[in-house]
Amino acid sequence: MTAEKKGTVRVGILGLGTVGGGVFKTLHSNRETIRKRTGYEVEVTSILVRDLEKERQFDIDARLLTLYPEDVLNAEYDVLIEVMGGLEPARTVITEALRTGRHVITANKELMAKHGAELLAVAEQSGAHLLFEASVAGGIPVIRMLQGYLTANRVKGISGILNGTCNYILTEMGSTGREYADILEDAKALGYAEADPTSDVEGFDAAYKLAILTNLAYEAEVDLAQIERVGITSLQAADLELAERLGYSIKLIGNARETDDGLQLSVRPRLLPKAHPLANINDVFNAVTIQADVVGELTFSGRGAGEFPTASAVIEDLTALLCGESSIRRPSWKRRISGDAGAKKAQGNAWYLSYCCRPDDVQEIEVKVVESLLTQGAFLNARGEVAQKNGLVRQGWLVGGVSEQELQQTLQTLYKTGANERTAVLLPVEGEIVPGVEWKQQVPSINEALLSVRHAW
Amino acid sequence: MTAEKKGTVRVGILGLGTVGGGVFKTLHSNRETIRKRTGYEVEVTSILVRDLEKERQFDIDARLLTLYPEDVLNAEYDVLIEVMGGLEPARTVITEALRTGRHVITANKELMAKHGAELLAVAEQSGAHLLFEASVAGGIPVIRMLQGYLTANRVKGISGILNGTCNYILTEMGSTGREYADILEDAKALGYAEADPTSDVEGFDAAYKLAILTNLAYEAEVDLAQIERVGITSLQAADLELAERLGYSIKLIGNARETDDGLQLSVRPRLLPKAHPLANINDVFNAVTIQADVVGELTFSGRGAGEFPTASAVIEDLTALLCGESSIRRPSWKRRISGDAGAKKAQGNAWYLSYCCRPDDVQEIEVKVVESLLTQGAFLNARGEVAQKNGLVRQGWLVGGVSEQELQQTLQTLYKTGANERTAVLLPVEGEIVPGVEWKQQVPSINEALLSVRHAW
Repeated sequence: MTAEKKGTVRVGILGLGTVGGGVFKTLHSNRETIRKRTGYEVEVTSILVRDLEKERQFDIDARLLTLYPEDVLNAEYDVLIEVMGGLEPARTVITEALRTGRHVITANKELMAKHGAELLAVAEQSGAHLLFEASVAGGIPVIRMLQGYLTANRVKGISGILNGTCNYILTEMGSTGREYADILEDAKALGYAEADPTSDVEGFDAAYKLAILTNLAYEAEVDLAQIERVGITSLQAADLELAERLGYSIKLIGNARETDDGLQLSVRPRLLPKAHPLANINDVFNAVTIQADVVGELTFSGRGAGEFPTASAVIEDLTALLCGESSIRRPSWKRRISGDAGAKKAQGNAWYLSYCCRPDDVQEIEVKVVESLLTQGAFLNARGEVAQKNGLVRQGWLVGGVSEQELQQTLQTLYKTGANERTAVLLPVEGEIVPGVEWKQQVPSINEALLSVRHAW
Repeated sequence: MTAEKKGTVRVGILGLGTVGGGVFKTLHSNRETIRKRTGYEVEVTSILVRDLEKERQFDIDARLLTLYPEDVLNAEYDVLIEVMGGLEPARTVITEALRTGRHVITANKELMAKHGAELLAVAEQSGAHLLFEASVAGGIPVIRMLQGYLTANRVKGISGILNGTCNYILTEMGSTGREYADILEDAKALGYAEADPTSDVEGFDAAYKLAILTNLAYEAEVDLAQIERVGITSLQAADLELAERLGYSIKLIGNARETDDGLQLSVRPRLLPKAHPLANINDVFNAVTIQADVVGELTFSGRGAGEFPTASAVIEDLTALLCGESSIRRPSWKRRISGDAGAKKAQGNAWYLSYCCRPDDVQEIEVKVVESLLTQGAFLNARGEVAQKNGLVRQGWLVGGVSEQELQQTLQTLYKTGANERTAVLLPVEGEIVPGVEWKQQVPSINEALLSVRHAW
């Protein structure tokens, strides 16, 4: 794989934070490998920073640094690397670079999710390439897979753990039994969560990444409003414990699947059976499972964020340009996917339902749940309960053969009977579920049904 | 990604068994996708088969079929697809095709592991490409990753579950408690194992695949004799149960890692802690974890064999050729890696040791084990035992700070004390292990050490 010497490629960089620092250091540390395998020397000509005086953990020529985007654009460069994040000035500077025929490599998921089609069109017009492997799942080459590998294959569905912050929080809640707010503080202290964690914990970040993957897989452009989005803030440690007992993990999953009604897109916490390829992806790791028509199911996992994994994705985009830009395929995000999130609510028929109540109310609420399931033609798969520290009980049910809307109605009834509205949780369950053993015996009356449920547990 | 119409590519196929049938059917079913994305129509011009009269599950023009390799070479073709397996006539036909400038796509791991360098040299000389994604891990694009993605990255280690037959057998032994020979019969009935399973269960098949991955990652050529190879035939269901109790899975792992003594290569059953990315890969699934210097750890998993996953790999090699053969990098397997398996025995210092004995002998053998560990400066992490159906007991130990050779000596002593030599098992353990709680208290005498061990369990 040793390449002939081809010259020098000049690179401008926007941003010298965690990822930018990783890119700069790796261009230095792996210079010889890059030269040997691509034939090119990489020379950094200019770097946009926020603070010229900031102390950095590595040697850098101060003359490369500037506070002004124009300086980067006015320097000599062949490739622009954007690792600053945010919509502006990134959008303007990238547009200008592409317009003048320079290749751009970006790690900016928000920008690609919101303005990807527009930027790709500018690139196509000038003949430049816009690469964005680092925008999704850090160092995991899932974009390369969708864009460069699955060519004869048609993608049928995508499922991913796309946000490391949420995965860390859920993993810790499950393993320690501590609550969301506590773990979030730990995550901030460890640098896994930002001071304002909204984009992560409310699922915006995962939705940007899901949009990018969907755009690539379906050669379309998803409107972010089409993605049903539920964060992790209302989950209780007790839910993770109940799910575990029932044989499931709870993960925040970005999901795109083809249905008879078109493409269904969601980011929401889901119960995954332990044998699911994403069920054992823990801590800050990310993973993506792609379902395709010929190859079946492929899963890629690795570190989804951090200095070097993300820098790796940026630099491998650069080496791809250096090895043969002519063979890089242009994504086409042109066909608009119609509809909105409301119209394409998850059609799954297996659900996890949980709520808190006083121990005294347990039995009455159980009767209501079973009554409601019977009325809706639904069935019960399993049930569990854990005592919470506050003296309340959390009950969790796995139910099937029922829609989310119907279960919302069930919940309304339960609130009147004493279930705590503020702490109710309703999550989709992946995989087939079947009526539990006792349920199958054609329960003739509500009381007997309930009895059999208690018995089964 | 819609490409302009570029013409027709003519394909000859060697073999129309499971994979060949999958290739033929997919070229038909996904013809439109391939045409749209590559610009090419694919036309099959000739197929080498073993039996012209065999009934097939799909429509095929009988005039395409031939019993003679020369017919395939004499037909008009641009690309040769080899999915027949075995060394000959595959090697001769592929050499001839490459010599005359035709691209070749092969799924033949044995051929690539034994004669890859020779065939790649022929390809390089004529300007043709030899592609072999399907030779390792079925539909999982691990070769594409090593060859086309990890360019700035340097690979530091590879671990893989590379044989679906063994993974199926081990998974079933663990979940059902049934023994190897029983499960092997099931695997044969399900089509997961061949009539003669030697190549799979003794680790030859995994060694071929490990050699191919190592050759790519290290730009070298491994001699198969350099790979330490241990199969799964001596494992007992009780070992899987003991490992599970201790928090581990047992998997047949192909492993390449850099050590101070050079590259260490092995295929052998290993204990993986449950959090290891390969520990939860079950049934016939394959997975490969690559450790690289910038990106860290990446894991790819999916179906490692079967009609369509393997056909997918073959056809995606074809689409790679159609999308831009100029950008496909040539692997260089030139530098010989010196040394042999004996010289590079696994240097790990954590081990799982198990043996069968009569219940009456348990205590005496335990004393010997602890005595031996103390003498060797080793330590005990954990211990377990299960009663076997034959009235014997299987004891398993996790020990650290000791070499494999030293433990072999320990085993010799145990045999004299009543441990059954024929059923002893010694496996490397992945991950750090530390002295168990009681062991840490500076055991002053063997008897106390033993007491503390019993206590700890």
